[in-house]
Amino acid sequence: MDFYDYESRLSRPVKVKIPDFQAGERLNHVIFADQFTRGLLDRLGRIADQIRLLAKSREGGRFLNDLLRHKRAMLYFTQPSTRTFLSFMAACQILGMACSEVRDPAVSSESKGESPFDSMRMFSSYFDVVIMRSKTPQYAECCAYMMNDLRETSRRNIPVINGGAGADEHPTQALLDIYTIQRVFSFFHNRDSSQWKWLDELRTRYPNLRKGIDGKSFGFCGDIRRGRTIRSLASLLGQYEDVTLNFITPRHPKLAMTQEYRTRLLNRGVDVREYGSFEDRVDGEPLIETLDCLYMTRIQREHNRPEDEEEFREIDFGNFKLTPQLVSRMKPYAAVLHPFPRDAEFGEIPTTIDVDPRSHYFRQARNGMWIRAALLAYLFDVDSTITDFHYDYTRETQDYNVGAL
Amino acid sequence: MDFYDYESRLSRPVKVKIPDFQAGERLNHVIFADQFTRGLLDRLGRIADQIRLLAKSREGGRFLNDLLRHKRAMLYFTQPSTRTFLSFMAACQILGMACSEVRDPAVSSESKGESPFDSMRMFSSYFDVVIMRSKTPQYAECCAYMMNDLRETSRRNIPVINGGAGADEHPTQALLDIYTIQRVFSFFHNRDSSQWKWLDELRTRYPNLRKGIDGKSFGFCGDIRRGRTIRSLASLLGQYEDVTLNFITPRHPKLAMTQEYRTRLLNRGVDVREYGSFEDRVDGEPLIETLDCLYMTRIQREHNRPEDEEEFREIDFGNFKLTPQLVSRMKPYAAVLHPFPRDAEFGEIPTTIDVDPRSHYFRQARNGMWIRAALLAYLFDVDSTITDFHYDYTRETQDYNVGAL
Amino acid sequence: MDFYDYESRLSRPVKVKIPDFQAGERLNHVIFADQFTRGLLDRLGRIADQIRLLAKSREGGRFLNDLLRHKRAMLYFTQPSTRTFLSFMAACQILGMACSEVRDPAVSSESKGESPFDSMRMFSSYFDVVIMRSKTPQYAECCAYMMNDLRETSRRNIPVINGGAGADEHPTQALLDIYTIQRVFSFFHNRDSSQWKWLDELRTRYPNLRKGIDGKSFGFCGDIRRGRTIRSLASLLGQYEDVTLNFITPRHPKLAMTQEYRTRLLNRGVDVREYGSFEDRVDGEPLIETLDCLYMTRIQREHNRPEDEEEFREIDFGNFKLTPQLVSRMKPYAAVLHPFPRDAEFGEIPTTIDVDPRSHYFRQARNGMWIRAALLAYLFDVDSTITDFHYDYTRETQDYNVGAL
Repeated sequence: MDFYDYESRLSRPVKVKIPDFQAGERLNHVIFADQFTRGLLDRLGRIADQIRLLAKSREGGRFLNDLLRHKRAMLYFTQPSTRTFLSFMAACQILGMACSEVRDPAVSSESKGESPFDSMRMFSSYFDVVIMRSKTPQYAECCAYMMNDLRETSRRNIPVINGGAGADEHPTQALLDIYTIQRVFSFFHNRDSSQWKWLDELRTRYPNLRKGIDGKSFGFCGDIRRGRTIRSLASLLGQYEDVTLNFITPRHPKLAMTQEYRTRLLNRGVDVREYGSFEDRVDGEPLIETLDCLYMTRIQREHNRPEDEEEFREIDFGNFKLTPQLVSRMKPYAAVLHPFPRDAEFGEIPTTIDVDPRSHYFRQARNGMWIRAALLAYLFDVDSTITDFHYDYTRETQDYNVGAL
Repeated sequence: MDFYDYESRLSRPVKVKIPDFQAGERLNHVIFADQFTRGLLDRLGRIADQIRLLAKSREGGRFLNDLLRHKRAMLYFTQPSTRTFLSFMAACQILGMACSEVRDPAVSSESKGESPFDSMRMFSSYFDVVIMRSKTPQYAECCAYMMNDLRETSRRNIPVINGGAGADEHPTQALLDIYTIQRVFSFFHNRDSSQWKWLDELRTRYPNLRKGIDGKSFGFCGDIRRGRTIRSLASLLGQYEDVTLNFITPRHPKLAMTQEYRTRLLNRGVDVREYGSFEDRVDGEPLIETLDCLYMTRIQREHNRPEDEEEFREIDFGNFKLTPQLVSRMKPYAAVLHPFPRDAEFGEIPTTIDVDPRSHYFRQARNGMWIRAALLAYLFDVDSTITDFHYDYTRETQDYNVGAL
Repeated sequence: MDFYDYESRLSRPVKVKIPDFQAGERLNHVIFADQFTRGLLDRLGRIADQIRLLAKSREGGRFLNDLLRHKRAMLYFTQPSTRTFLSFMAACQILGMACSEVRDPAVSSESKGESPFDSMRMFSSYFDVVIMRSKTPQYAECCAYMMNDLRETSRRNIPVINGGAGADEHPTQALLDIYTIQRVFSFFHNRDSSQWKWLDELRTRYPNLRKGIDGKSFGFCGDIRRGRTIRSLASLLGQYEDVTLNFITPRHPKLAMTQEYRTRLLNRGVDVREYGSFEDRVDGEPLIETLDCLYMTRIQREHNRPEDEEEFREIDFGNFKLTPQLVSRMKPYAAVLHPFPRDAEFGEIPTTIDVDPRSHYFRQARNGMWIRAALLAYLFDVDSTITDFHYDYTRETQDYNVGAL
């Protein structure tokens, strides 16, 4: 692809780019995880909570389904994806948006010599938002710039959402991860009542435990180098106070974190530590027993080159697989996350762990749907309509236990 | 696929399995045709009749379209299918459900090492029902068991509908066949009035003719051995009283019915007979003239092996093709059915038969949409809402001729 | 495909066929561009204008979205197409129709020996309209005949819309082209007011300039021979008075217009002229400076045969590419159109022209969505509902500037 027109904009540091994806105070395009401030993350989490509660009832479900039914979404996913694609589609459907998809690049007019930017502008003719995943890094970013240029000349332009591109950013994955972590550390429990609260019980053993992400210790295990998910999430966690990020990876340059990335996190004031095993000691305690949240990832074997296979043969990958025994030693409130799909053959999370209350990865997947619906509601400026309806609805139903859902 | 966790459940007889697919008195999963009792078949047929009447008007169409618009269906059809897929999609759309589809197994995360059960659980995160067709026998059944296990631990679970798998069961095909037969033997006629009724006229010639499936004689012609449709349908017909099932097949072990299957039907008290031609005599009369309903099927040539081709060469397949002359000799009310697609090259039903009033196969296809909509309405417990609306609606419009539609 | 049953009907002249695609005074099937009379073109253009205005507001958008939500469309596009496919889908979605698609012919039952007419009749069982694009010329036409035959015997039949087939007709492309031209020659301007009108200003320089298509001079540049778009559009323009059609093509028999086609246009009383360059003189003036509208097309290189490549090598294709300099010499109100996709490599319209106010090709693409929505509304007889709602709506909002949108 020819990005000539956008080169000067592409080469800027992310921080300088961010205002380009705003429309006033609100996000317009979603390209980088770093667009999400702590305040916005809280706000989107609240909207997602409201949507999930409303969606439980027929009345609430229909209210949501009416919100954007005059809008149309294009899901332009030329790089294979099931989970992100389907959860975005479900998110659109929750809000009543009609969806169209283009998944096979060979189907499109590019075979007739059409430029990718003409394709994008065609989508913007017919649809009200484009959610895209492409093999080409920075394509989504350039599309956002093109839309901005159209806006400046008062021509039709629509929001662009990056659904994860190549080794690029995957901002909505980071969003759903943060949302899941927010919910884990709300310490809400189904059995919570005026007599008993789970958090109170936990505090008898962990007196300093407090709600929220601040002060927590996170573990990241697996393919740090090639897994974009962890990189984006770790950046966002850097916005919270007093968090510790523990990376558990093979000490191989193709799998461990880069010096550049380590420096970036350290510069943000994040406490970064690196380990080779869950049993490594932290202040005398085994790492696994100290974590508040453990984020597992798949070793992305499909990206292995022949020489990698050779080099990786010496690594003891057993150190980077979870077992029921390991999980049972984790704090009772600690959460195991995974961006999924997990690798059944490699076995970084055996299915025997699925029944452990610390396993949150299936909930995490479903959270992706809710938070993406929240993001779409926010982009189309109907989030306050949801908040208002939710306020009236919960007053009527006397159901204030939003966190319970 | 590894069905290890489900092996003990898979190996049980069908009758013992059936309660596993119930939720209380109602079906939860639809896996086997044998789940449909005679009472349920009647009920689903009534709902389908109500839906088809309501769908004729804008007002009724919108009522239906509102029923499940807060619900989302996943059509997971990794084995090619057009008719079942499209009629299920149309059924969902009639009820306002948003649909998503996964058709290409290569698109999915299975290429990243994901287990098929993780895929299914992902679908259950985003959608409210999975309708599935897979190359792998028993995959749908196992998915239903997995959902049951999730239900038992109070985790999210959704209904699974088997849309036909491999040489497996195809329960909703049997359902639409029964629904079509129910309608044929309601002997309703467009010209029916208070002065004249078609059934009365028929009775002048067939004095013992009565409404309903009981006592009827059915012919099944074609590929009995490999065609799952006939097997499922014949099982369901076994629930009715005094039916005769006449199988017209080449006497080749790869095409004729198995001894095991014959025994099963006989044990149910079904009168099973086998013939080699439509001209074979039944109490002195040619078979073709005695049938109330003739179910034709395609010889599934795509399943032929090279040695089959050789062996089949000696068979006179002309005996298993219908002609306008044959049809004209059938009883005036008899119905010709076919699960479709028919094979234009082989010609088991030449198009010249399409104009004969006895040809019901196109109506049969459309019935598939109505009965699938009825099934979905039933699974989501909105069937009585339909029945109530239909009651008020037909009272208002003075249109009691439900059968007419 | 075997069109035996339809051969006598297929071989008739188009004019004789047209009544077959009517239902009373209204179109039933859309097969040929010549079905659109000048009166119908005006009417569809008005409906499209009303739809585009209503779609701008949430209230209007929902009104539209309710109109056909009890209807279902099948998009049967076995020949690749993105633009026509997506704009039809968006058009359906605007009106609330549920869409299903069949795009891969291998998925369908044709692999099981099904005839294409059985496939079509299956679609007509489940859906309320079929919009189709096929590699096989005349398939859509035959499907319309089949539907007519079903109608005559009081069986279910639905409208068939030709979405462009092979080198066949592409009637809805011609429709969107005419709609775009109607809008260009309405001379509406965003800055129009009671004090100042763009048309008045233009008339100070072009005193004879009048609204509408009559009397205008059109240029058609590129691949006239193989491009069906131009052929259909030129035919429709022949309905207007006093139009001049200027063809700018290489003088190669595989690219220039055929004698037969030239004669057909001349017989309609159209003033047809042929040129080899934009600089050729018309009454002393360079052609480019005399045009009211220039319709560019892509040289359809994917249809080149090896021998063509050889022969075409001698052609100076530079004569058939637009430049910003050429555009700047065009009349200030002249419009540049292109059916898109344009060929980025060949460069018949470089992107530097996109910012020129004379470039209308992106608007033209979006017009395709509006006019297709208008066509669907008309086929389903809800166009007067739209006109009524629009009347009330604009009275309320005091917004009479329909043309402005």
